[in-house]
Amino acid sequence: MDRVAIVGTGLMGCSIALALRAAGFTGTIEGVDRSGEERSEAVGGGGFGRVMPEDEGGGVLAAADVVVLAVPVLGILEWMERLAPVLRDGQLVTDVGSTKARIAGRARQVYGGAGQAEFLPGHPMAGKESGGAAQGDARLFDGATWLFTPVAAETERTLGWRKWVRRMGARVQDLEPERHDELCAWVSHLPQFLATALAALLEERFGDDPVVGAVGGRAIREMTRLGASPYGMWRDVALTNGEAVGQAMQALEQQMAHLRENLRGPELREMFRSANRLRLRRQSADE
Amino acid sequence: MDRVAIVGTGLMGCSIALALRAAGFTGTIEGVDRSGEERSEAVGGGGFGRVMPEDEGGGVLAAADVVVLAVPVLGILEWMERLAPVLRDGQLVTDVGSTKARIAGRARQVYGGAGQAEFLPGHPMAGKESGGAAQGDARLFDGATWLFTPVAAETERTLGWRKWVRRMGARVQDLEPERHDELCAWVSHLPQFLATALAALLEERFGDDPVVGAVGGRAIREMTRLGASPYGMWRDVALTNGEAVGQAMQALEQQMAHLRENLRGPELREMFRSANRLRLRRQSADE
Repeated sequence: MDRVAIVGTGLMGCSIALALRAAGFTGTIEGVDRSGEERSEAVGGGGFGRVMPEDEGGGVLAAADVVVLAVPVLGILEWMERLAPVLRDGQLVTDVGSTKARIAGRARQVYGGAGQAEFLPGHPMAGKESGGAAQGDARLFDGATWLFTPVAAETERTLGWRKWVRRMGARVQDLEPERHDELCAWVSHLPQFLATALAALLEERFGDDPVVGAVGGRAIREMTRLGASPYGMWRDVALTNGEAVGQAMQALEQQMAHLRENLRGPELREMFRSANRLRLRRQSADE
Repeated sequence: MDRVAIVGTGLMGCSIALALRAAGFTGTIEGVDRSGEERSEAVGGGGFGRVMPEDEGGGVLAAADVVVLAVPVLGILEWMERLAPVLRDGQLVTDVGSTKARIAGRARQVYGGAGQAEFLPGHPMAGKESGGAAQGDARLFDGATWLFTPVAAETERTLGWRKWVRRMGARVQDLEPERHDELCAWVSHLPQFLATALAALLEERFGDDPVVGAVGGRAIREMTRLGASPYGMWRDVALTNGEAVGQAMQALEQQMAHLRENLRGPELREMFRSANRLRLRRQSADE
């Protein structure tokens, strides 16, 4: 792998460029982004050589050994269509999208055939609540899990990309695309939409009453941190994994109603026991 | 203030002892706790001189200038009854309970009269998800808000305690007791019961399936951290602020249902906007 091209030089794209450099990658890293501001920021951040506007990125993408699609999910699906006819055998396309079933399904259809580029769907479980190239972080993937949902047999190219992902500090895990989307609905998408609902509720109820900020401690800061997340990215998650997300949200609404109805009852103790058990197991796993 | 007695030498009691020491308090700090393990841990931690069992604590409490009640809310209410007849004019009793209306109401009735000790209800907005003396932390209150819900005019004693609270690094803010409970229902109790419901739900659904831990990142760790909180403390919050907590929980359930029904609709953008606004304001306040 000598030439990497990253489509979307925001938080994820920039962090991948910086993490590759930090991991010792000495080849070419070039980018494509539609925002002039993000392009400048990405080049200034040091990970990239050049970053081109979308309509001038053809050369960069045609020359890459690996193309990383680091835009929201619907953008990834669009780029998959756009690149499939122009890339060639021997090139690998991978992505960092938050949902995988739609992407994996399309990858099976338009990649991996004779003369076509390969596609390896990926999803690093790392991020920040604020996006943008300025947030790019060489250590973003250090200790994180980087999920893959392969749609074809491994090749030299896919093994090579996996090696770089591990060098960036991530643990690699493979899942079926549908299983990925189901699990992520619970452990990633549900927390996001829950934080958004909670933050929006507090905003509607208290507005800019300064007492809320003064009174609130770590608990409410943590639980609303993801309220800062950008709509565009999560709209695409909602559109491509809405059913599983809806089911997880509804289950939590029911659990909350159950707890609320038992605030003065014996089942409150049971619910604290279950919650304690989860945390105990998680803690011993972290140690 | 020369002699401080702390009832309950768990996380809060020990942290107060250690923080007073770190802030330069050179007087006597003694404790009362019913658990032998906690007593040893509290003395070993360095903040306390001696820590007595409950039935041998009379002398320590009778000699104190300030008595701090650092047990769950129902325990505070019990200690208030127990101490009112035996303490005297010139002594101050304060507490760190999570709800204030019941405590303030009782304080008005059995403290502050002729010959009686004074009572200043308090609530430091600081804590950890795991309790116990071993978690005691001299910096727990550094930068935190310490709420008071006074029930009588300030005196030399109450002003003296406020001064030490500030020296421990806390910002002091006064609220009406009912307003305190209403606000805390939203910014403290709701996050706790929400985290418990979410952690219990994940526990029930996934049990010890290791993939959940492997896939989950910072989002789910943060949102379930408070799942480790002890039942006993929060049962008392539920029992003494159940109505406000129930209303806040129900409002969040409705907000989540609204978001869920609009996962594919235009209102999702509005909810992200509201959530973003809250976080932007909070960030500028933090800077």
